[in-house]
Amino acid sequence: MRPVVKTVLVATAAKALVVAVVYLLRKHGLLHIFNASKRAALPDPSDDYELFPIDFSMHVQIRQNAVQKFLQTHPEAKSHRSVLLLHGGSEVDRYDTDIQYNFHQESFFQYLFGVREPDCAGLVDLTTRKAVLFVPRLSDEWELWCGDRKPLAYFKAHYKVDEVYYVDEMAAVLESKLEAKKLFVLHGKNTDSGLETTTTSTFGGIEKFEVDKAALHPVLVECRVIKTEKELELLRFVNKLSSRAHINVMKNIRPGKMEFHAESDFLHYVYSNGGARFHAYTCICGSGHNASAQHYGHAGAPNDKLLEDGDLFLNDMGGELHGYTSDITCTFPVNGVFSADQRMVYEGVLKAHDAVIASMRPGVSWVDMHILANRVMTEHMLDRGLLKNGTVDEMMEHEISSYFTPCGLGHFMGLDVHDVGGFPVGHVRSTKRGLRKLRCVRNLQKNMVITVEPGWYFIEAQLRIALANPTVAVYINQDALARFRGTGGVRIESDVVVTATGVENMTQVPRTVVEIEATMKRK
Amino acid sequence: MRPVVKTVLVATAAKALVVAVVYLLRKHGLLHIFNASKRAALPDPSDDYELFPIDFSMHVQIRQNAVQKFLQTHPEAKSHRSVLLLHGGSEVDRYDTDIQYNFHQESFFQYLFGVREPDCAGLVDLTTRKAVLFVPRLSDEWELWCGDRKPLAYFKAHYKVDEVYYVDEMAAVLESKLEAKKLFVLHGKNTDSGLETTTTSTFGGIEKFEVDKAALHPVLVECRVIKTEKELELLRFVNKLSSRAHINVMKNIRPGKMEFHAESDFLHYVYSNGGARFHAYTCICGSGHNASAQHYGHAGAPNDKLLEDGDLFLNDMGGELHGYTSDITCTFPVNGVFSADQRMVYEGVLKAHDAVIASMRPGVSWVDMHILANRVMTEHMLDRGLLKNGTVDEMMEHEISSYFTPCGLGHFMGLDVHDVGGFPVGHVRSTKRGLRKLRCVRNLQKNMVITVEPGWYFIEAQLRIALANPTVAVYINQDALARFRGTGGVRIESDVVVTATGVENMTQVPRTVVEIEATMKRK
Repeated sequence: MRPVVKTVLVATAAKALVVAVVYLLRKHGLLHIFNASKRAALPDPSDDYELFPIDFSMHVQIRQNAVQKFLQTHPEAKSHRSVLLLHGGSEVDRYDTDIQYNFHQESFFQYLFGVREPDCAGLVDLTTRKAVLFVPRLSDEWELWCGDRKPLAYFKAHYKVDEVYYVDEMAAVLESKLEAKKLFVLHGKNTDSGLETTTTSTFGGIEKFEVDKAALHPVLVECRVIKTEKELELLRFVNKLSSRAHINVMKNIRPGKMEFHAESDFLHYVYSNGGARFHAYTCICGSGHNASAQHYGHAGAPNDKLLEDGDLFLNDMGGELHGYTSDITCTFPVNGVFSADQRMVYEGVLKAHDAVIASMRPGVSWVDMHILANRVMTEHMLDRGLLKNGTVDEMMEHEISSYFTPCGLGHFMGLDVHDVGGFPVGHVRSTKRGLRKLRCVRNLQKNMVITVEPGWYFIEAQLRIALANPTVAVYINQDALARFRGTGGVRIESDVVVTATGVENMTQVPRTVVEIEATMKRK
Repeated sequence: MRPVVKTVLVATAAKALVVAVVYLLRKHGLLHIFNASKRAALPDPSDDYELFPIDFSMHVQIRQNAVQKFLQTHPEAKSHRSVLLLHGGSEVDRYDTDIQYNFHQESFFQYLFGVREPDCAGLVDLTTRKAVLFVPRLSDEWELWCGDRKPLAYFKAHYKVDEVYYVDEMAAVLESKLEAKKLFVLHGKNTDSGLETTTTSTFGGIEKFEVDKAALHPVLVECRVIKTEKELELLRFVNKLSSRAHINVMKNIRPGKMEFHAESDFLHYVYSNGGARFHAYTCICGSGHNASAQHYGHAGAPNDKLLEDGDLFLNDMGGELHGYTSDITCTFPVNGVFSADQRMVYEGVLKAHDAVIASMRPGVSWVDMHILANRVMTEHMLDRGLLKNGTVDEMMEHEISSYFTPCGLGHFMGLDVHDVGGFPVGHVRSTKRGLRKLRCVRNLQKNMVITVEPGWYFIEAQLRIALANPTVAVYINQDALARFRGTGGVRIESDVVVTATGVENMTQVPRTVVEIEATMKRK
């Protein structure tokens, strides 16, 4: 080992120790012992930051689970010299410029290896169960721009793998060191996007091996559906952080600000208080009519409207840490006080949210939960006069609620905000208006993580369809509806873990009208 | 026009009026008249936000300039029925998921049309000089997720173009309405990345037209090199906002925080105070040794080190608005007070920064400015004993400074942070160690915008090369160097406009040691 590298390693270890000590001092409120003199007179909100220490044994365990599950379903792989092989993601250039989009690791690779660097690959040997990581061989030029090259020993220790080589050694390592014959590589279709794997392994010399593209993807999808305890700990942290960020937004909003102030506040909160550099998806901060656009906030409508007194404000935002997401929606009045009509809609959605959470437990069908939410909201809207001329059963039969809540009740959440596995292989999507947008059709199992996000919206494009159809329009009280058109809508979204007997709601934000108004009432 | 569309249009116009009125009230400090009762008791820093109103006549003028310049260099195009045709950018999927990277418009398209929506195209008719915008035809499904579809009339009025059609009508419009024969489309190579245009126009029916891929790119590059007055106004606003954000960071930093607190603070400041949603590039927040990595902050080193008492902290960060960038670096001590060694290096770099700014004016060679900066720093380091055993001329001859400042002095800046045009067509890069990294080799002209960013770094990979070469090592005082190794480095970066007689420095931040220490001294 060259002296410089050794120095860097020692320095890295020393600094890791300092960070760990500071973390512990901070955790136990003892940081003042460490540097009281420097900070005594300098109060600052982000001094309360809390960093979640990533425990890479989480990925060791995930790899063990994956191998076990793979061998259960493909016992014949044991008798070959076979490996599971995945390539990680690469940076994406922004057009022809020398700027790249912010790098984000590919989720299946993140799941198995948790590696934050681009251009890596990894394998698990099905015979020895050893994990091997491959990292890019970086140039002197790279070091000039990006800093010291880390030695292979760093990657081995940091990522808790058994061996590390350079990516350009892959064929030789597979052939000579591992004597591999068969590679199970990742290839499949994402049921939310309809897109196929973009990182399917390929490398110079791959033709020497037997390659199977079909077996690995469905096994890993099934693994990702059920979270491990360590994954849950991380998801709880991200959710706690994001919940607090939502509360902070709620406290800071008032008429005269812009929608994007919520986005900016949120991102700053999760980053400065918890180190969450990225958000799980583009923030949706829609006020008034904008709340009716499910994915408002995109490039053509970038949360840039003035917040007006009297409007509702729907905020759908989630932080992300180590690739693990959160996905929380709070809807509240810009001025801090619900009008009677806003309260009416809000309480209908909250009833559905609470009814679903109270009914969830292992074995329950998610489709039934979706129908339950729709029934509860339909009942409420009939009771409050927005719907009319029929019974709840008739309205459910005609899917009246689907014109006001055209989306599914929720989706799996984990490494992707719309996490994989909602549709088991071979399942055919329902074509029913009220069910065709569902992202999950499973029966619940312990340690699934799913969003519960009922909503009721006044979407012009949907209302046009509803009102043009006499068999639907007859159930809608158009006099009442006139008061609501153009006012947007309400979504309430929590992230829950299915437990042995029910659920744990990781999202802790003010939910009732009373709680929200009290939170927004500033001194 | 359907009644609903009309309602939306009227509502949009009314809201635009409200925004404009609020903007003017805010600008003149009269917002309290508008909503004093609501906000009286609610002080908040981001109530001071200032939104820069994008004037789309900027793009009208840019198109006129471009046509004029194109016809000067290609007068034969006048006699054909020819158009300049560009396609804008599209959203990029993140692997196989249903998440996309944050959309960023392609810069040449942004330059001519300023359109924030993806999947558009635009042309300028060289005969009539009319501008035609093509927008995607959006589905009912799109409207459910993304909000109301804007009518073509909106795009025409908002973007100040002469006609608007759907993208799928392009061949028909070109053939029947414009009777076009020849299309000049965008294709060329970016001299910073080495990558070729990724958005070169193509569409069903393009084979009916004569297509020229060579002529347009060099003309538009030359246009982008010289900024219009309206572009300068926008660049000044972004720079003012980003300067203030840097000052805010400087005030908030102290030992015990993390590097990423600077990044989070900066982004929150430019977004909440000026509506700058994105940063121009990944924030570089390197403390101590990390400051020696020119592009620290990337995925493998995401600004995640604890800020330690005694370290310098290099912050290279810039906001971006309407695609227009800023690129500012401030270097300061984490604890607010420069040590003698830190001050020594800092003042050498500041001398170079100031000497270059004092020497810049039209006609001056940027290569000469780069050499000037290196000479000033070499002189300083010799005077202060880091270099030894020779004259400045000998050291310049042996390019000693190139081991401490291996990058170019600066680069054009505008729609891209490394803006196009630094290398005129046909220019061959120098292979000299001290010049080969230059991003610009032009003589200065009025209304060029360029960064002045001298730096002096202790990069292990460079020092290894220097010390291994006796003809270089002889000039380096290794006893002195030992004190500096591992301490990082200093960069001072300002964004300047070349004026008729000199330069205007758009970046206004504390620069001297005294100014920085005073700024960081908190009550």
